[in-house]
Amino acid sequence: MKKIAIVGYGNLGKACEKIALGWDDAKIVGIFSRRNDVASPYGTPVFPQRDIFDAVGQADVAVLCTGSANDLMGLGEALAGKLNTVDSFDTHAKIVGYVKRMDALAREGGTLSFVGIGWDPGIFSLCRALFEAALPDGYTHTFWGKGVSQGHSEAIRRLDGVADAVQYTLPKQDAIDLALRGEGRELTERDKHLRVCYVALKEGADRERVAQQIKNMPNYFAPYDVEINFTDINTLKSEHGGMPHGGQVLRSGASNGKKCNMSLKLQLESNPDFTAGVLMRYAAACARLNAGGESGARTIVDIPVAALFENGDALRFI
Amino acid sequence: MKKIAIVGYGNLGKACEKIALGWDDAKIVGIFSRRNDVASPYGTPVFPQRDIFDAVGQADVAVLCTGSANDLMGLGEALAGKLNTVDSFDTHAKIVGYVKRMDALAREGGTLSFVGIGWDPGIFSLCRALFEAALPDGYTHTFWGKGVSQGHSEAIRRLDGVADAVQYTLPKQDAIDLALRGEGRELTERDKHLRVCYVALKEGADRERVAQQIKNMPNYFAPYDVEINFTDINTLKSEHGGMPHGGQVLRSGASNGKKCNMSLKLQLESNPDFTAGVLMRYAAACARLNAGGESGARTIVDIPVAALFENGDALRFI
Repeated sequence: MKKIAIVGYGNLGKACEKIALGWDDAKIVGIFSRRNDVASPYGTPVFPQRDIFDAVGQADVAVLCTGSANDLMGLGEALAGKLNTVDSFDTHAKIVGYVKRMDALAREGGTLSFVGIGWDPGIFSLCRALFEAALPDGYTHTFWGKGVSQGHSEAIRRLDGVADAVQYTLPKQDAIDLALRGEGRELTERDKHLRVCYVALKEGADRERVAQQIKNMPNYFAPYDVEINFTDINTLKSEHGGMPHGGQVLRSGASNGKKCNMSLKLQLESNPDFTAGVLMRYAAACARLNAGGESGARTIVDIPVAALFENGDALRFI
Repeated sequence: MKKIAIVGYGNLGKACEKIALGWDDAKIVGIFSRRNDVASPYGTPVFPQRDIFDAVGQADVAVLCTGSANDLMGLGEALAGKLNTVDSFDTHAKIVGYVKRMDALAREGGTLSFVGIGWDPGIFSLCRALFEAALPDGYTHTFWGKGVSQGHSEAIRRLDGVADAVQYTLPKQDAIDLALRGEGRELTERDKHLRVCYVALKEGADRERVAQQIKNMPNYFAPYDVEINFTDINTLKSEHGGMPHGGQVLRSGASNGKKCNMSLKLQLESNPDFTAGVLMRYAAACARLNAGGESGARTIVDIPVAALFENGDALRFI
């Protein structure tokens, strides 16, 4: 029986709960949430997040689904050495330091932590590394979309006059074609992705002013081509309420001077549900490897894919 | 300095030699060939294949590039325990037994052997395993091509009246589209791939008879739709002398009931040159891991991608 703790109960935590409920050999020992007004529709016990330390000795692994990267880092470091953990930490600039600290803490306490697990970081990271190893003479592009960016949607929602908004990131086909031909090393962010926004305004809001605010927003929108569509709140909810995402990793290069292309592509109807599937599969592996004596911190490139299967079952894919 | 022995000097062995010659920290201690009439255009020393045992203590790893699966198995088992080995063994029905025997021999002798390394088996195997782990509720299809099948080309060349021939395997787009929609579990080999042949006849050969012999050849062609094009020997050499290949692994399924597609695609101008790049990268890792104390046999799913990089360099892909 796999005993699992889930920390954080947003989209990702909820999706992880559903994955675990679909396993007949798993038990969720608790969901640990910072909000005190939430209950699980499936009757899973929900506790205050600070009580996660009660799960020590109860859970085989804690799946960390809290929101911001800084919160996650603090939580991971508080738990490493006490509980096995799996997270989808995604702040590139901080990952080396985070892994190093997690590794020291986890080794000392005899636990195992998997860091940066999901699809990007995660499966995309694994493929970027594998592709570069297989084809060292080449160049890798990552494209995201079509998909909803929660961060960009939220940035629009914070503007005066906006009732609700959804932002889709779309890869530009011209840029993908260039990448496939082994060109496009000089492509800018504007060349690679388009940002398409659906915005519902509050009554009396100034449409043109909101559009200008979006287009000129530094970092989020200013460096991109932006398409803005105004719509009503009901259409927004009914037609843009999903969380699709996806993307592709493309490597174009040559081996002994002969042209080669390698690409990985994901198309996901629901970003959190797919990410949860990956996270939970690695969580089960984390608990199993720690039970087998492994400790420390690992990223996805350190973990053999065979570890995701039991009893050498991965041999059937060769 | 990486010291490498190459066993077998066909297309793959020659491509491995070129990869190693491109490395400034590698030395080929010898090419070991069953033919006694070959020389390297680059001046690499060529020895009789039976002298490979002289490489024990000289080479860090032997890259096995001999032709048939049976030869390869015998060679691997003769060397395991004496030399680190890397091969692209590809007979699915025999792989479990082969890995088991290689593991026992290599452990006893303190060497390390990587088995089934290349793109299929190899990178495709790794992705089939990874995709199924990420998306257990789904179905995986593998498509090959467009590419030259050496085995099928050779089967045509053996027919009476044929001077030379090249056979391309092509995936059928209809089948790929079905697979992407999560359908097509019942697809037959005929549904998934088309075999396109370019044939140059000897003078006086009976065109219709050769065509019938190809179309009715059991296993090779009878179960497929076959397109036959007759051409002259010069056109065959000038337009069909390359060894392109490629293919894709598609998984379509759902996570928490939400649809997901995962796909890996390779397009290779030269099959042996790409395979050699993969094989040699794993060969370097094999030597390095054995120097670090690892022994036994591994398939691609057992080897973390980080092992293909030195000094934790793989962290930059996260």
